[in-house]
Amino acid sequence: MKNHFYADLEFNEFHLGRPFIALNMVGSLDGKVTLDGTLRPGSLGSTFDRKTMNIIRSHFDAVLMGGNTARQHPFYLGVSAKLAKLRTEKGLASQPLTVLLTKSGRLDPCSPLFKDPPRAPLIFTSQRGKHKLSPNIINQSNLEIIDENTKLNTICSLLQKKYGVNRLLVEGGPSINYQFLKEQLLDEVFITLAPRIIGATSDLSLVMGDKVLPNSKFSLISSFQHENELFLRYAISCP
Amino acid sequence: MKNHFYADLEFNEFHLGRPFIALNMVGSLDGKVTLDGTLRPGSLGSTFDRKTMNIIRSHFDAVLMGGNTARQHPFYLGVSAKLAKLRTEKGLASQPLTVLLTKSGRLDPCSPLFKDPPRAPLIFTSQRGKHKLSPNIINQSNLEIIDENTKLNTICSLLQKKYGVNRLLVEGGPSINYQFLKEQLLDEVFITLAPRIIGATSDLSLVMGDKVLPNSKFSLISSFQHENELFLRYAISCP
Repeated sequence: MKNHFYADLEFNEFHLGRPFIALNMVGSLDGKVTLDGTLRPGSLGSTFDRKTMNIIRSHFDAVLMGGNTARQHPFYLGVSAKLAKLRTEKGLASQPLTVLLTKSGRLDPCSPLFKDPPRAPLIFTSQRGKHKLSPNIINQSNLEIIDENTKLNTICSLLQKKYGVNRLLVEGGPSINYQFLKEQLLDEVFITLAPRIIGATSDLSLVMGDKVLPNSKFSLISSFQHENELFLRYAISCP
Repeated sequence: MKNHFYADLEFNEFHLGRPFIALNMVGSLDGKVTLDGTLRPGSLGSTFDRKTMNIIRSHFDAVLMGGNTARQHPFYLGVSAKLAKLRTEKGLASQPLTVLLTKSGRLDPCSPLFKDPPRAPLIFTSQRGKHKLSPNIINQSNLEIIDENTKLNTICSLLQKKYGVNRLLVEGGPSINYQFLKEQLLDEVFITLAPRIIGATSDLSLVMGDKVLPNSKFSLISSFQHENELFLRYAISCP
């Protein structure tokens, strides 16, 4: 792991008044994240990409996903045992906190995410969503009940103040990514460019919303190649 | 120009039995090619990208676009005077041939493309499309009338045999790109990755069709950075 290009990341994370927030995603050359409508680990990224994703996560206090992503990929957003050990040596919790945003509360209580997770996931949901959650999910998780129109900014502040999240990693899906960009809350983006073109109009793109996003400045911090994949890192500054 | 990373491109162009075919496009990090629904030169790529596009074109005998692209960007797909001179020194026509595919024949006779073009554009259209073309367009162009279901492969063979096109560059739009990939006719793809995320679902992606494309192998030949743009070149081999 020590030789990986992301083994020792440094971030410009001070004076933000909120957590430092980065987005990580793997997409095809035509910007797609699903294949035939589904989001399966490994359908786009390689084994090396999944290792890289693990290393990126290891630098963060929490990893966030939306409900749609959790339904398609119902796993704890954690790190390998080796990275967990490195984290504790640095004084971090051995695993980043998995954070879930779901308005509807439609989550599968039998999914791996709620079957003996390494750390209790934190679920942000609405009053309405809470009533949909099964007792098993409620037992295995921490809950924050929020108004359905709560801004991400408010959620991020709460994550920092109440849960000590100073570095937050966002792992999608497309609508969550869009909301973070729209609210201009992202400081960096990590993108794995998979050597593939999907082409199907019905597949989902990396970022999906109803309007063109504000024209923020993306500065390319680094670009690494491994076989035919490219690992790109951008800093975002808002206009 | 001599110092540009694409000044001296070499291609694996032999024993194909058809022209060597490459695709060139500029897209955002989320794979979009339009901004607020329109395709405007410079809205995604930089001045340097447009220069690079010119240099790529200079290596090709013909540059092809579809009718939608021609309606949004009605210009001859040519090269600068300096590159034209270099071409003639190499024994090529000073300008690549602009090739247009339009079933409908809906083209604006007053557009710059048909106002004193440096070389007569070649239009592939249907019998139905021919009747829509204005006399001015017919005077300024060469026409090939094809059946509406003609395969691209047939068009490409005709381009080689009748028009001496041994290297064909495809410049979109999304449906034309899709058709070339679907028929497995592309040997290479040049992509400029613009440092921007568009985010609007309604904007067009680089490649758009109804089904997931065959999983061809994309090998990254080279990757160059200029400021925050990345210039990627992939070889495609079919399964």
